[in-house]
Amino acid sequence: MSADLVPETRVLAVASHVVYGHVGNKMATLVMQSLGCDVAALNTVDFSNHTGYRQFKGTRATAEEIRNLYEGLCQNNLTDFDVMLSGYAPSAAAVEAVGAIAQDLQRKAAGRPGSFFWVLDPVMGDQGRLYVNDDVVPAYKSTIQHADLILPNQFEAEVLSGIQITSFHSLAKAISTLHATYNIPHVIITSVQLSKLSSSAETPSASPSSPSTQNLLTVIGSTTTSTGQPRLFRVDVPALDCFFSGTGDMFAALTVARLREAVFADPDGSLRSTKSWISNDDVPPTALPLAKATEKVLASMHNILEKTIEARDAELASTAAVVGEEEDMRKREHLRRTKAAEVRLVRNVRFLRQPTVEFKAQEWERDF
Amino acid sequence: MSADLVPETRVLAVASHVVYGHVGNKMATLVMQSLGCDVAALNTVDFSNHTGYRQFKGTRATAEEIRNLYEGLCQNNLTDFDVMLSGYAPSAAAVEAVGAIAQDLQRKAAGRPGSFFWVLDPVMGDQGRLYVNDDVVPAYKSTIQHADLILPNQFEAEVLSGIQITSFHSLAKAISTLHATYNIPHVIITSVQLSKLSSSAETPSASPSSPSTQNLLTVIGSTTTSTGQPRLFRVDVPALDCFFSGTGDMFAALTVARLREAVFADPDGSLRSTKSWISNDDVPPTALPLAKATEKVLASMHNILEKTIEARDAELASTAAVVGEEEDMRKREHLRRTKAAEVRLVRNVRFLRQPTVEFKAQEWERDF
Repeated sequence: MSADLVPETRVLAVASHVVYGHVGNKMATLVMQSLGCDVAALNTVDFSNHTGYRQFKGTRATAEEIRNLYEGLCQNNLTDFDVMLSGYAPSAAAVEAVGAIAQDLQRKAAGRPGSFFWVLDPVMGDQGRLYVNDDVVPAYKSTIQHADLILPNQFEAEVLSGIQITSFHSLAKAISTLHATYNIPHVIITSVQLSKLSSSAETPSASPSSPSTQNLLTVIGSTTTSTGQPRLFRVDVPALDCFFSGTGDMFAALTVARLREAVFADPDGSLRSTKSWISNDDVPPTALPLAKATEKVLASMHNILEKTIEARDAELASTAAVVGEEEDMRKREHLRRTKAAEVRLVRNVRFLRQPTVEFKAQEWERDF
Repeated sequence: MSADLVPETRVLAVASHVVYGHVGNKMATLVMQSLGCDVAALNTVDFSNHTGYRQFKGTRATAEEIRNLYEGLCQNNLTDFDVMLSGYAPSAAAVEAVGAIAQDLQRKAAGRPGSFFWVLDPVMGDQGRLYVNDDVVPAYKSTIQHADLILPNQFEAEVLSGIQITSFHSLAKAISTLHATYNIPHVIITSVQLSKLSSSAETPSASPSSPSTQNLLTVIGSTTTSTGQPRLFRVDVPALDCFFSGTGDMFAALTVARLREAVFADPDGSLRSTKSWISNDDVPPTALPLAKATEKVLASMHNILEKTIEARDAELASTAAVVGEEEDMRKREHLRRTKAAEVRLVRNVRFLRQPTVEFKAQEWERDF
């Protein structure tokens, strides 16, 4: 009956809450619960809706309030988490408070390698623009060294590595730098738009002039070797012509569930009790649990987002467009379109559990 | 593919949030989502854990913060809710703020009878004891008149009706009073312990001396007729020998989903566009959508709580009891037992969707 579920996993999810819609913990909690994870949700903000609506009401948790909630868990012995997933934190002090929670959980798990794993999504910005205060960047730079897996998007990877990603070569260099500088075992760079990278000869599909690449999104991942070398893989998925809020949170939540599943399914039964779940050096990139997990994650996301586009189009067709050039009309039309593009999860949980498409991890050339 | 889901339902759920475990909105959201409802969760408190642990950390939302979050929804046109479910509110002012939200949604739905339905769980206390401030009681008394369905437990029904429930006769009188005094269309009194009521001849199982009744919990419901008469039904379920936190929230959330399902399945297709979903007078008590819903709700709950007891026993067996008479030891043992009794939801969602037992609604004698 529970064949669709991942192994039992207790997750502490630290991210934002919105009353309406699905981003942050409102997205991540449901996604992980749908796959059978028991989720403790520590909310870093409490907003009416996501910020893509351009207006919202609500409150941000202070670092003190975040610490306080965690102390409540500690005093009741409610800290037996297998995984922590941390996302948006509303200030540098909050980033540090979240980092301190993860390190406390790591201390509690000392002596039991692999029993606790921290997935950190360093939410700072996108498309070349920071949407947090400047002081959040150094806070993340001093925090991510403690994480087992980080999930930056292309811009965040640039900020953290100090390397501008303009080619496959610089992309690989950014990942190597993240491994080396911060000692991070696993890295996934979400949503790299290959077509925007400068021409590169490594793979046929990397040419910006090829029409087929215009519509590809690529996810790049790597698990370090024992000597600190990256093991790089890529998964290409058709890009959908729409912007959705919360997809980063969906990716992170699915990755938590699918990575633990892949680690538990690993033929080398000792992996789950290996620090940071780092596969032996003889495991090639495409056989990494991180690669296996990413394949499933992207398949589920593709299914859910296709269903979301269908539902969005139906909703937009059933409500009247607000036409006009006045500011109020443009705003109302923006709200209508933003609401229609909310990710459709609850009726599509089957695609989280059993995705119906396949995207395969491919190895990269090792020499750049 | 979605045969297990109830009709699409957009719910505004207003209740407490806890980081760890399943009570309040943390319970209700997952339950309703699992049945396919799209849930907006407005959290009235943000605690580390439920109060049964006897210690917790966190914050309570002020009435102003609750209003503010709702204003955020309003300004973004995110108020197209089919149902509102309201539970624990941390102050009299918060109860009034929640009531004002429901009335605003009712105003927005004016002219479309049956398009919005308010389920109110008047959380005030249990077992003869208030656990809210005294001023919350009059706040609820002036609020519940606007609700479509209220879900008091036995104690709360006594407080609201002013009638002490000591027999079947007084129980029926309390329900009639709730219908009449507050003009409430639907009432369910959850968790009546028949064996504690004084002897009554209406049903054979009502005798307090009968061993079979010692282990029964009875849920009593009624939908008013057009002339304000109650239509009383009861559903008996075997009482489980354990106390669980969050069962009231699970009951309320399941009732939202199953009642809307039953109303949509009603052979009289006009019921869903009838104000407050009040069935025609020729519908007998046991054929009421409220009765049909209650049967499914209790079946799911029974399955989930049986699984919870199994998991609790396994957890208690796998961890060492804290033995000793010192206060610290007693406290640690209480924490161990409270944690073990957290309701097990995520791995048992199938019982929400497809309960495997049946409990049948029975009609009461109409004359007391």
